[in-house]
Amino acid sequence: MREVFQQQLTEVQDRLVEMATTTSHIMQKASSAFLNSDVVSADEAIALADANGSKALALDELVIRILAKQSPVARDLRVLVSALRISASLDRMGALAGHIASIARYRFPGAAVPTTLRANFEEMARLDVELSKRVSILLKNTDVDLARQIQAEDARVDELHRNVFDVVLGDDWKENAMYTVDVTLASRYFERFADHVVDISTKVSYLTTGEWNDAE
Amino acid sequence: MREVFQQQLTEVQDRLVEMATTTSHIMQKASSAFLNSDVVSADEAIALADANGSKALALDELVIRILAKQSPVARDLRVLVSALRISASLDRMGALAGHIASIARYRFPGAAVPTTLRANFEEMARLDVELSKRVSILLKNTDVDLARQIQAEDARVDELHRNVFDVVLGDDWKENAMYTVDVTLASRYFERFADHVVDISTKVSYLTTGEWNDAE
Repeated sequence: MREVFQQQLTEVQDRLVEMATTTSHIMQKASSAFLNSDVVSADEAIALADANGSKALALDELVIRILAKQSPVARDLRVLVSALRISASLDRMGALAGHIASIARYRFPGAAVPTTLRANFEEMARLDVELSKRVSILLKNTDVDLARQIQAEDARVDELHRNVFDVVLGDDWKENAMYTVDVTLASRYFERFADHVVDISTKVSYLTTGEWNDAE
Repeated sequence: MREVFQQQLTEVQDRLVEMATTTSHIMQKASSAFLNSDVVSADEAIALADANGSKALALDELVIRILAKQSPVARDLRVLVSALRISASLDRMGALAGHIASIARYRFPGAAVPTTLRANFEEMARLDVELSKRVSILLKNTDVDLARQIQAEDARVDELHRNVFDVVLGDDWKENAMYTVDVTLASRYFERFADHVVDISTKVSYLTTGEWNDAE
């Protein structure tokens, strides 16, 4: 019985890792779409985000079936409840990256990013892609040091997010309202994406250290 | 044993209803802050949103304890897993309303809404407050007709959200970038708030009809 249960937990973990990998692909394609007005990547990102949502639903079903059959307690129970939350976060991350791709789609063949903010968004995109890759590794290895590193990188994304507002609300900003809307929303999506990575790493830290906390 | 379990389920339900009521208060205060530059309401909304987050954590702990002690299966198990998700949505709704209050706080003593979009945001605010009140009732009674009504009202919020973009991207929009940023983000928060109401009503519908689906 215990062996079956361990197999099931491994299956849950594998599926979470797979979702994290997909999420990272979605963000790579969405960023490329957003930064380079690449409509093919945009469409791929949007399609992958949809598929990711279906994977989240299927994973939740699997977790519920395991809960029903195994009636786990203590740490095993918390692992499964955490899996539900992590799958919800990965689902949202895919959706947020999909929204970034949609902005690129709407503006095509025009650019969604004005040159003044290009470097800012390139760094945000690079960090978000890196963060989502770290999530895959973290979910495979539950490495607490990696979790701490993630939290530090998220702080940089927050800084870049605030910088977008500083630029847009500064005296030198002469772009039209369309650019203002696009960069405001895109920056929010990049920032929320990184927030979810932090949420996931907090859950994983908990599983390792025993501290159950949504501390920020 | 069954009686104890029923009492525990009732406790979970009561706490969800209480969170929904708090969420509705947060949105009322946040909307008032946003529409009337009312800084006292803004601070109250932000404080209540924090408290709501703590309630969500406490409720999750309770659900996990019940899962561990009672090892529920079938419908009981799904009720508890749904409770975890509903509590996460109510937590996010409080946070989103808190963000709306924060916008008002930043712009104080100035207004966050230009006159051209005032009526639009008044209607969004009214609908969001109404939607969150309906969630309280729905969680008390699991009334499927009410769930359908909620889905229709959310469609109107989406329409108002799209209208904000039509106005901001239209030729007549002459407001500065600060207004553009504020209304873009606020509209997004109002829209996401309503989305969560739909998610909750979908979960409740499921519990009544047996169809487990995140269909939109």
